[in-house]
Amino acid sequence: MTGKIYSASTTAPVNIATLKYWGKRDTKLNLPTNSSISVTLSQDDLRTLTTASAAEFFDCDKLWLNGKEESVEGNRIRACFAELRAVRKVLESANPELPALSSYHLHIVSENNFPTAAGVASSAAGFAALVRAIANLFELPQSPEELSRIARQGSGSACRSMFGGYVAWDMGQSDDGSDSRAVQIATQEMWPDMKSVILVVSASKKETSSTVGMQTTVNTSSLFKYRAEVLVPQRFKEMSEAILAKDFETFGRLTMMDSNQFHAVCMDSSPPIFYMNDISRLVVGLIETVNKIYGRVVAAYTFDAGPNAVLYYLEKDEPIVLGLLKAVMPDVDGWNKKPNTASITPTVPEGVDQRAFPALAAGVSRIILTSVGPGPQPTDEILINDDGLPK
Amino acid sequence: MTGKIYSASTTAPVNIATLKYWGKRDTKLNLPTNSSISVTLSQDDLRTLTTASAAEFFDCDKLWLNGKEESVEGNRIRACFAELRAVRKVLESANPELPALSSYHLHIVSENNFPTAAGVASSAAGFAALVRAIANLFELPQSPEELSRIARQGSGSACRSMFGGYVAWDMGQSDDGSDSRAVQIATQEMWPDMKSVILVVSASKKETSSTVGMQTTVNTSSLFKYRAEVLVPQRFKEMSEAILAKDFETFGRLTMMDSNQFHAVCMDSSPPIFYMNDISRLVVGLIETVNKIYGRVVAAYTFDAGPNAVLYYLEKDEPIVLGLLKAVMPDVDGWNKKPNTASITPTVPEGVDQRAFPALAAGVSRIILTSVGPGPQPTDEILINDDGLPK
Repeated sequence: MTGKIYSASTTAPVNIATLKYWGKRDTKLNLPTNSSISVTLSQDDLRTLTTASAAEFFDCDKLWLNGKEESVEGNRIRACFAELRAVRKVLESANPELPALSSYHLHIVSENNFPTAAGVASSAAGFAALVRAIANLFELPQSPEELSRIARQGSGSACRSMFGGYVAWDMGQSDDGSDSRAVQIATQEMWPDMKSVILVVSASKKETSSTVGMQTTVNTSSLFKYRAEVLVPQRFKEMSEAILAKDFETFGRLTMMDSNQFHAVCMDSSPPIFYMNDISRLVVGLIETVNKIYGRVVAAYTFDAGPNAVLYYLEKDEPIVLGLLKAVMPDVDGWNKKPNTASITPTVPEGVDQRAFPALAAGVSRIILTSVGPGPQPTDEILINDDGLPK
Repeated sequence: MTGKIYSASTTAPVNIATLKYWGKRDTKLNLPTNSSISVTLSQDDLRTLTTASAAEFFDCDKLWLNGKEESVEGNRIRACFAELRAVRKVLESANPELPALSSYHLHIVSENNFPTAAGVASSAAGFAALVRAIANLFELPQSPEELSRIARQGSGSACRSMFGGYVAWDMGQSDDGSDSRAVQIATQEMWPDMKSVILVVSASKKETSSTVGMQTTVNTSSLFKYRAEVLVPQRFKEMSEAILAKDFETFGRLTMMDSNQFHAVCMDSSPPIFYMNDISRLVVGLIETVNKIYGRVVAAYTFDAGPNAVLYYLEKDEPIVLGLLKAVMPDVDGWNKKPNTASITPTVPEGVDQRAFPALAAGVSRIILTSVGPGPQPTDEILINDDGLPK
């Protein structure tokens, strides 16, 4: 059975928090215990592409991720579908000439331009793309801020992927989550010389999922409440100001401190949660040493709920940062993706202990060289065929 | 040149904190930012033996540790010498017939019954033995509590090695440190079925010294102050009560929580301090799993400023704890030191993931099977010859 299929596509970016989201005050609505800040990474290197389509002849809602059909029975996806259909329905009620898309089933096809093996969490980009694609399909007038409230219900940090550049997730105060949404602090053009490198570290075992980990921390860490209520609000203000002032020294210092504090409250949980491993710690040691040698923050590290390191640095320091990484791991997969890095000279600053280099080279499986980028972008690329199935 | 040599010897034990000392409010006097609790380990397995001698013909103060002459110019040793001489001098003034030992130079010879390679910090036992040996030589009437104030100035945690069993170090309030001393919570006889195992983990690199690490944490961790001022006082009370009630469940739970929180505030420091490594974390995972399987605290782990794990458990659970360790690391050095463990059957409880076993077996270099023991013991074994030199 076929018929008219309405479709719209979008891309959406990955974001990496520099002030960490950890802990929910409402697990159903994904309402956080503290505000957070992130940097949106370039979609040239990491993005999700999603097509949303609706047709009267579709029998049920369906979703394909990276070529594999996935369940749409989860509460999080259902919440996003329901919210988006509700706002579409308002439009349809106001204008009866509009097709009744809110009553049609949806087919969603989503693909990442990076392999799962890259170890980069994709749920933020995935839910941002899902919400943005359906909003495009439904021609919703809602602002990205308003849509971020919906994406938040899919995956907390997805709300921050609704924007490019430097993004804050305001935790909000309301019980219904109506004021818990993302806002842009600054565009990527405002601070364009920010660069990023992801060092993908092979994990030997499955980590605690962040959903489970967060609630373990909320329920058991006695340091956590103090962090969320007392320390983060102050740090949030300082980091927002550092971004607006393009003060990399402060931004980088706070980024590293907040990553360490996030992993500290994980460790203070019962049972303790460890996301960083020995390789992660060698990366920390390397960056701390380089910063000490130069007497300033040349690069800042941050670690999410896993062992991968994400580094931020300014373009002017590329010879130092990439020069060192090239000396440490000249053969790691990833340099080949950026031909312009061929000219970078492997350089080890005097004072760097090279004994950790072999372990680092062996422990990092991939390097992703990237930068700060924009938010979701509409695209004409449609992933669904005339039968409403993945192309 | 020779003449009459006055000598006295003592042994002193190692102690392992279960409520951690981390941070000084006065670095010169070794005054801590919070009270702490420790368990004194049996001297059959780990002890320092020290002879203190004094003679009119000695030219200067001298110290030999494990056969090697060491400097006595450090402020910490000098402080101990000065305090002990001052109290001796009071005795001599009251009784002119006493030899004027307070005016003689001291020769100190100290030996551990465990190799440095065991990775067990020996400064606590070392300073406790030094102070106790000189106090014996000087025939000082001061109580162990009073002497613990002096040992504290040598090495903070040394004050706790002045007692056996279960020991508290009361942080005190005075600026001069006069009320910062150790007190015994309970003797080893009061809770005799407590056992301990140390898993010595090979460290690949030199760790941050605890003196440096503590002050980095005090100066930079925003979680630290909250721990020291708000959380530790409550935990101190709970752990003291658990020891007096022989409530292993509470004692063990608090011990694990406090170890994790200590390492959490280390990680929250700038630069972050990491003492635990991947092997340490595998031990944590193993013990947490076993406790979960049995639905109670079978064993409790704690980690000091290094990767070694110290486990506490009750004798009745020896088949579970040692049975599991024997299954994981049957060939590790240490079983052979306790012939009675030959009868322990290697046993892996259902539900324990055995994939980590090879890494654990490779990463643990030695196992020390021990128990709770008494404080310093006088001994007739003299390590100094008639020339005042090490035998």
